[in-house]
Amino acid sequence: MSNRIEDVVDKIVKGEVELHKIDEILDANAAMVARRLAIERLTGNGLPSIGSTIIDYYDIKNKNAENVIGATQIPLGVAGPILIDGDYAKGNFFVPLATTEGALIASVNRGMKVLRKAGPVRTKIVRDGMTRAPVFVLDSVVGAMKFIEWVNQNFEAIRNVTESTSKHGKLKKIEPLLLGNNVWLRFEFETGDAMGMNMVTIATEAACSYIEQNFEGARCVAVSGNACSDKKQSMVNELWGRGKTVVAETIISSEILKKELRTTAEKILDVNLRKNWLGGARAGTIFQYNAHFANIIAAIFIATGQDVAQVVESSTGFTWVENRGDNLYISVTLPSLEVGTVGGGTRLPTQREALSIMGVQGSGNPPGSNAKKFAEIIAAAVLAGELNLLSALSTRELGKAHKMLGRGIKT
Amino acid sequence: MSNRIEDVVDKIVKGEVELHKIDEILDANAAMVARRLAIERLTGNGLPSIGSTIIDYYDIKNKNAENVIGATQIPLGVAGPILIDGDYAKGNFFVPLATTEGALIASVNRGMKVLRKAGPVRTKIVRDGMTRAPVFVLDSVVGAMKFIEWVNQNFEAIRNVTESTSKHGKLKKIEPLLLGNNVWLRFEFETGDAMGMNMVTIATEAACSYIEQNFEGARCVAVSGNACSDKKQSMVNELWGRGKTVVAETIISSEILKKELRTTAEKILDVNLRKNWLGGARAGTIFQYNAHFANIIAAIFIATGQDVAQVVESSTGFTWVENRGDNLYISVTLPSLEVGTVGGGTRLPTQREALSIMGVQGSGNPPGSNAKKFAEIIAAAVLAGELNLLSALSTRELGKAHKMLGRGIKT
Amino acid sequence: MSNRIEDVVDKIVKGEVELHKIDEILDANAAMVARRLAIERLTGNGLPSIGSTIIDYYDIKNKNAENVIGATQIPLGVAGPILIDGDYAKGNFFVPLATTEGALIASVNRGMKVLRKAGPVRTKIVRDGMTRAPVFVLDSVVGAMKFIEWVNQNFEAIRNVTESTSKHGKLKKIEPLLLGNNVWLRFEFETGDAMGMNMVTIATEAACSYIEQNFEGARCVAVSGNACSDKKQSMVNELWGRGKTVVAETIISSEILKKELRTTAEKILDVNLRKNWLGGARAGTIFQYNAHFANIIAAIFIATGQDVAQVVESSTGFTWVENRGDNLYISVTLPSLEVGTVGGGTRLPTQREALSIMGVQGSGNPPGSNAKKFAEIIAAAVLAGELNLLSALSTRELGKAHKMLGRGIKT
Amino acid sequence: MSNRIEDVVDKIVKGEVELHKIDEILDANAAMVARRLAIERLTGNGLPSIGSTIIDYYDIKNKNAENVIGATQIPLGVAGPILIDGDYAKGNFFVPLATTEGALIASVNRGMKVLRKAGPVRTKIVRDGMTRAPVFVLDSVVGAMKFIEWVNQNFEAIRNVTESTSKHGKLKKIEPLLLGNNVWLRFEFETGDAMGMNMVTIATEAACSYIEQNFEGARCVAVSGNACSDKKQSMVNELWGRGKTVVAETIISSEILKKELRTTAEKILDVNLRKNWLGGARAGTIFQYNAHFANIIAAIFIATGQDVAQVVESSTGFTWVENRGDNLYISVTLPSLEVGTVGGGTRLPTQREALSIMGVQGSGNPPGSNAKKFAEIIAAAVLAGELNLLSALSTRELGKAHKMLGRGIKT
Repeated sequence: MSNRIEDVVDKIVKGEVELHKIDEILDANAAMVARRLAIERLTGNGLPSIGSTIIDYYDIKNKNAENVIGATQIPLGVAGPILIDGDYAKGNFFVPLATTEGALIASVNRGMKVLRKAGPVRTKIVRDGMTRAPVFVLDSVVGAMKFIEWVNQNFEAIRNVTESTSKHGKLKKIEPLLLGNNVWLRFEFETGDAMGMNMVTIATEAACSYIEQNFEGARCVAVSGNACSDKKQSMVNELWGRGKTVVAETIISSEILKKELRTTAEKILDVNLRKNWLGGARAGTIFQYNAHFANIIAAIFIATGQDVAQVVESSTGFTWVENRGDNLYISVTLPSLEVGTVGGGTRLPTQREALSIMGVQGSGNPPGSNAKKFAEIIAAAVLAGELNLLSALSTRELGKAHKMLGRGIKT
Repeated sequence: MSNRIEDVVDKIVKGEVELHKIDEILDANAAMVARRLAIERLTGNGLPSIGSTIIDYYDIKNKNAENVIGATQIPLGVAGPILIDGDYAKGNFFVPLATTEGALIASVNRGMKVLRKAGPVRTKIVRDGMTRAPVFVLDSVVGAMKFIEWVNQNFEAIRNVTESTSKHGKLKKIEPLLLGNNVWLRFEFETGDAMGMNMVTIATEAACSYIEQNFEGARCVAVSGNACSDKKQSMVNELWGRGKTVVAETIISSEILKKELRTTAEKILDVNLRKNWLGGARAGTIFQYNAHFANIIAAIFIATGQDVAQVVESSTGFTWVENRGDNLYISVTLPSLEVGTVGGGTRLPTQREALSIMGVQGSGNPPGSNAKKFAEIIAAAVLAGELNLLSALSTRELGKAHKMLGRGIKT
Repeated sequence: MSNRIEDVVDKIVKGEVELHKIDEILDANAAMVARRLAIERLTGNGLPSIGSTIIDYYDIKNKNAENVIGATQIPLGVAGPILIDGDYAKGNFFVPLATTEGALIASVNRGMKVLRKAGPVRTKIVRDGMTRAPVFVLDSVVGAMKFIEWVNQNFEAIRNVTESTSKHGKLKKIEPLLLGNNVWLRFEFETGDAMGMNMVTIATEAACSYIEQNFEGARCVAVSGNACSDKKQSMVNELWGRGKTVVAETIISSEILKKELRTTAEKILDVNLRKNWLGGARAGTIFQYNAHFANIIAAIFIATGQDVAQVVESSTGFTWVENRGDNLYISVTLPSLEVGTVGGGTRLPTQREALSIMGVQGSGNPPGSNAKKFAEIIAAAVLAGELNLLSALSTRELGKAHKMLGRGIKT
Repeated sequence: MSNRIEDVVDKIVKGEVELHKIDEILDANAAMVARRLAIERLTGNGLPSIGSTIIDYYDIKNKNAENVIGATQIPLGVAGPILIDGDYAKGNFFVPLATTEGALIASVNRGMKVLRKAGPVRTKIVRDGMTRAPVFVLDSVVGAMKFIEWVNQNFEAIRNVTESTSKHGKLKKIEPLLLGNNVWLRFEFETGDAMGMNMVTIATEAACSYIEQNFEGARCVAVSGNACSDKKQSMVNELWGRGKTVVAETIISSEILKKELRTTAEKILDVNLRKNWLGGARAGTIFQYNAHFANIIAAIFIATGQDVAQVVESSTGFTWVENRGDNLYISVTLPSLEVGTVGGGTRLPTQREALSIMGVQGSGNPPGSNAKKFAEIIAAAVLAGELNLLSALSTRELGKAHKMLGRGIKT
């Protein structure tokens, strides 16, 4: 250790320098080391594993993280291939999943194997758009309604303002919501291959300034008024969507059900109804009539550098099953899947490689096509996860705990 | 590369061996390498970063992940220290946060600094228990009500069955829910320092078998009937809790608000009401009357080996603010925070170290005290995150995009 | 018209006397007349029909209504008989329905006819209790938790206070809810044959006074803190119940389905799933997975003097259908049915008679049995309404508008 | 009693004639009498009050009710006048309220008095439209998306079909909702002064037939797929509205608050936040952040012949209060108020008179203006009800039970 680093560590430990100030004193990676050493000393714990990382703090400082001391390492597995016939995803795909929950990857993998035998999974992007909803306060409802009217009339001017902040974000519409003298303007943008939240926030901030300057009496309380709704489950996301609304579906013959999963369409239907639908409604699981979307989505989000807090709304949705002459129709509908292949965590080394496994790293051609392809692959993987869990429950395999891992079963 | 590995890679690429079969052919880490090489060849992408990991697949195989090809690395920063006066957490704590979202760590860090100046954050565990709710079907409501009565009468016998499966899980109660001829039995356990879902699932499975054998006419459709509710937001979790229900609060003087945050209690209150409460209600954000619990919780969950899909319900809750003579009272209430310090991903190298930074790695003394301490620290960190974001919004700093990182602002 | 009445009317018209002051000047029924005449003159409309009432204002003044000018008359029909095998209701019952919506009574009547042929409807009261939830504010979470603990420890004393206010209300439990420094105490009472809201409010007010006097630092903000939840749909009502939780069910053979309804179990099941369950979930009908509980409940509530605003939560619930070898199992579950046979509007002339048609007028023996019997009859009538509408939809009869009334079809 | 009636009564009692068949044997009013007499004999109860009605069954048979035996009489009071400055309602209005719940009318009346002193209540209709949402099933998501596209492309043709069924209903738009292979088409119509549900149902049925005939593979499962959402609280109603979305607001000076209500803006704000907002959210009152909209709406609906089951969604909405320099700003927002002044029960004698008191009986000029005026009056009355209850709670008057009626306090 250099004297210079040691010196800084000393100062931190003595409380003479705050953790985030170190970046001003030392080069990026030296600062990372000093911070880690200081934490080691302050807490009396060695942190060698955290320190053993390929991440170059120089690259990510002020972009992806601050006060960095190293990295968290999470096991990364692959499931697949899954065979997809989507509008963007076509062919076989291996899907990277980062998780510490045993049996999850095996579960998805088993589902994919069955789906593969049943033929390609059909996927569809139903809609696409990233949103931000500032909240304004007016003096009265009368003022609020004039305000909404003014915004509608000045849509083109507002759009020009937003598009001056980014070459990628295209403002599609502004949906107003009113509550007494409060108004939310839900801006919706096309954001190409980026998940787009930062882009959209900056564009919406510019719009808010323009609006306040040009409409007297409207005060913007917050650029995010929770009707976006970011990192929250909400009605607006379910009805109007946020990110991609995407669906995946397939039909599995009774023969495959029997041979591969030792179950029947009737049994899977029974579990889906009583667990996902009745159970969901009775317990008040308002937006999640599914078995475990969240498991698959969290694992893919971690692996590919997505904003993991968005698992909250990205895991909402519906699993629907029909018995068609003893063959099984199964579909998953995800109203609010928020993903990107550029920006945010997608630029980090392991995350970038994970995206490349699916052929969706970076910008697509045309722009947006990579993110849509990625969303279709995720929906197909979610379908695999649902199929496997419902089938395992239908045969009571989850009850045989010792076999859990072998059969790849996961709640 | 050994001939043996190369040979297996060849077979995978040719489709002669499935990905998950490799573990039967090669030793753990050799299998990991072979799988990665095969994926590289099959997809035409190098995966060197994914391969550069300290994770020993031998240790985690069939415990934390399958089909592993390496690891995902996520920047790990620390915020703090935060000063806490809880029942379990007492003193100063640095909090590890793993994220790829720029400004998040800085935002939490800034909030902690202000909290520190305001005095210790008070934290309380309101309740604690992990749940699993199998769904049973009976022939009729008449049968369903007899069934519920029987379960109540046989609670002790059922408890004995559950406790035969684990020395840590203690069955506290069984809460029934009825919908026509369907019954959910929501088992609630104490699980010590473990988050406990696997323990609880195994115990509940045993109970289900016992129940089916001893009560004629009850068929267990699924050991998880979605009224648990695992990885879902639901009423039962909000009212009855799942994991820890925990609260953190403090009072910040007008002087500190002005000096450190350039804001006032009145301004923060205005943002909290119009954004978190009105915005939440108007948009239908049913369980999340907060600004960004999910950000902080996701980052800590990744860093410490929690089940990241549980961010969904763990991020529900309420931020409440009062203006007390121009000083600010602020509290966060988290009804369903699911965390552990043993089991699952907590045993992995970097995750274990992250827990050690807070002094909560492994079993506590008495059992359960480490998990509770950890929950209190998380609640305090969430308070810091809320305070900083609300304050930043209240002064319209989020509007000055170029300063975002410098001031540590994050939605 | 007497001079005296005329004189008062003049004064009202001139604005010299307020409407509600007339009761202080004239006898009850004279005041009613004077008020009606004044309104006639002030608005220039004759109100002869409103004036043609059997209601004696003397009897209801300060009990059921104020500022009365006469009565609203609503057509009252009967459906039935419906054959019930409940714990309280046993045998055949005609059910009075007051409505202005054509086809509703015929619809319920047709459903009852089919049910009668299928054998007795089984009904069950799952639980029973009326609630009121005052909200208290404390200085802190620490104080709030002490407060909750104190309430638990002083339950007996609090119960004594509540029971001093009424001989009928029995306090069963107090369920606390916490949000930061705010606490709701949800008092639950047995209320015999009364719906009981007034009784419970008075008892809870007494408890609140006692609590404030004996626990320093708790301020009762409102005796109703909306977690009761009265006249609102809410989680607490769905999970913990309010009023009666009641279920009705039956099995209908394929022959009866075919002969009486020209449909099949499979068709009804299809409509129930896609309309009530998928439609409910997709549209966000959170507590109402049914076709039209509200229609039947509103009509019975009006006819029998219930609190009609409570249709809101009383109409929540679930319709569940199974195909059992081509026979139809159908059940309705109502978590929050709030009814009484004494008190409130049940004492009015036509309402009392309507209750007598079902043999549930006044107090039961033992107390509470009449209200429970009434709840069972309502649930059975709701079952009839659901059966008929689902069956009509399943055969697309609703599509043949000209036949709507003849077949008794109603949304 | 004529021999002829007596004869029929005998047959009913002996079970030789069903209740609803009597209309085929006797004239309308004779049938009503016979049915009542039969019920009297069958149940052993006299029903003289029910029989004492001005309702002419001849007029309402097959229009408003079936199996009629007389009428329910409900006390009808008036509150007011309330002074309104709306777009449709301008001036002073007395509001008829039919209820059996003591103190309700007095409560609204007291609120109106205070509002009158504070100046005119401002009201606004934010949007207007009646909806019906049939559910269709397709073979696949691919088919579902083609279906939605086809509907969009054929909107004009579908509109022509719907408008052939009614001269009043104008189709405004069709909003699709998708869940796997299921599609809801939410038809929204202008319906003039009618609440419009029947009109809209008939028009939508015609559209469904047209769609099924012209788009191969779409099966209409039910003309009402619960995404309408009729007589249910739902997201779609909250976000897209059903019936009228209407707002009322005012400002009340601190002097008036003190003199008339003995309270302050600060106290009312405190109750509104902790009861309506925190209490609503904590208890899971998802769409009803108000104190008692349902009370006022139910009473007006009964008085004026509205569809009372629609109180369910009509009573959703938000009460919002601000302290403006110690003066009180208060507003109510009702997203889904479903009312009409023609059709349904509005044609009955007492109901028609009640509408005439407000000057909104029958068709408006231009069409629709009466229904909108009526909606504005209701919103103003709801504001009065909220103001009075919040103020009474703020001074703990509800705690003084003996004064309840005198001060007109009602939950």
